[in-house]
Amino acid sequence: MDDGTAHAPHGYISRKDDYLKRLRRIEGQARGLQRMVEDEKYCIDILTQVSAMTSALQSVALGLLEEHMSHCVVAAAQAGGPEAEEKVREASAAIARLVRS
Amino acid sequence: MDDGTAHAPHGYISRKDDYLKRLRRIEGQARGLQRMVEDEKYCIDILTQVSAMTSALQSVALGLLEEHMSHCVVAAAQAGGPEAEEKVREASAAIARLVRS
Amino acid sequence: MDDGTAHAPHGYISRKDDYLKRLRRIEGQARGLQRMVEDEKYCIDILTQVSAMTSALQSVALGLLEEHMSHCVVAAAQAGGPEAEEKVREASAAIARLVRS
Amino acid sequence: MDDGTAHAPHGYISRKDDYLKRLRRIEGQARGLQRMVEDEKYCIDILTQVSAMTSALQSVALGLLEEHMSHCVVAAAQAGGPEAEEKVREASAAIARLVRS
Repeated sequence: MDDGTAHAPHGYISRKDDYLKRLRRIEGQARGLQRMVEDEKYCIDILTQVSAMTSALQSVALGLLEEHMSHCVVAAAQAGGPEAEEKVREASAAIARLVRS
Repeated sequence: MDDGTAHAPHGYISRKDDYLKRLRRIEGQARGLQRMVEDEKYCIDILTQVSAMTSALQSVALGLLEEHMSHCVVAAAQAGGPEAEEKVREASAAIARLVRS
Repeated sequence: MDDGTAHAPHGYISRKDDYLKRLRRIEGQARGLQRMVEDEKYCIDILTQVSAMTSALQSVALGLLEEHMSHCVVAAAQAGGPEAEEKVREASAAIARLVRS
Repeated sequence: MDDGTAHAPHGYISRKDDYLKRLRRIEGQARGLQRMVEDEKYCIDILTQVSAMTSALQSVALGLLEEHMSHCVVAAAQAGGPEAEEKVREASAAIARLVRS
């Protein structure tokens, strides 16, 4: 965990509006799924929407991860010391959760 | 595609409220992610939430799929004729999309 | 578990040679990866091969699953009784393992 | 692509024997799967083995990726210049292939 204050500006911040837009669209997909269940739509059509939503989420995650590496991890490496190692371990754990989820 | 009328009641309908509740929680997770980006939280913490949300979505998909098979696919098999084959193909395509998404 | 004797011929058997060929190719990919590590190839190139091998394995799994459903699950549904329910639960558990692995 | 010569020793090399051992075990799993198909084992049992093999492969990939980041990516960041950016992009593409495979 991290309170978001101890770090240099996070990598994704320059594209904050883009991420917010994508997450609002994902929120809209979650509402669309509720409507489909409410209206008793066909299971397979609901599953197609779930797959689309999962792909959109993964794409957000991969974007955030790339920006995290090119900012936080690279900055820690350049600063030297044990923090680079720590940042790599932390990013690796996040990647493992993405691959397995 | 399927307009939801040509079928016997879909398998998930008996648990409609449960699915709606889970999807509302997922919608809440999407809003929580927007707040995290808005507040410029740490990337890795955002990624942890994305993984949790992806797992929740997959779990909904696996539940819907199981009910689809135990109702629609089984009913088509019992009715006989080419529809069983068609239902299996359709379910398999949905499974492939889940596995690859 | 299942000793393979209590069932009607399994669905994949008509395409046994095709599956054996694909699995031999996957075995070859595993040997290729050992050669790459032995020769100290670049990590990213090794990871590309791992992804190709994972995709090949998933494709075998999706094929087996589709044939299992169109033979075993459909036959159990047609036979009636509690076995259909059991087969669906068993297939669903296998699908969950694939989605999460 | 990379011919493996232009780099400082790759990160995984210190644990080369460990990776070779794990890959040999994965090769053995591929042979075990062929035996199962040859002996016409039950589909679901074959799928269980495929999931175990996929998990073993992913675990190798995640290990290689972590060592790649803590050696190659960190070294490029410390060297400065455009190569760090390039290494991050390359690692991100590899991660995307893993997440989607």
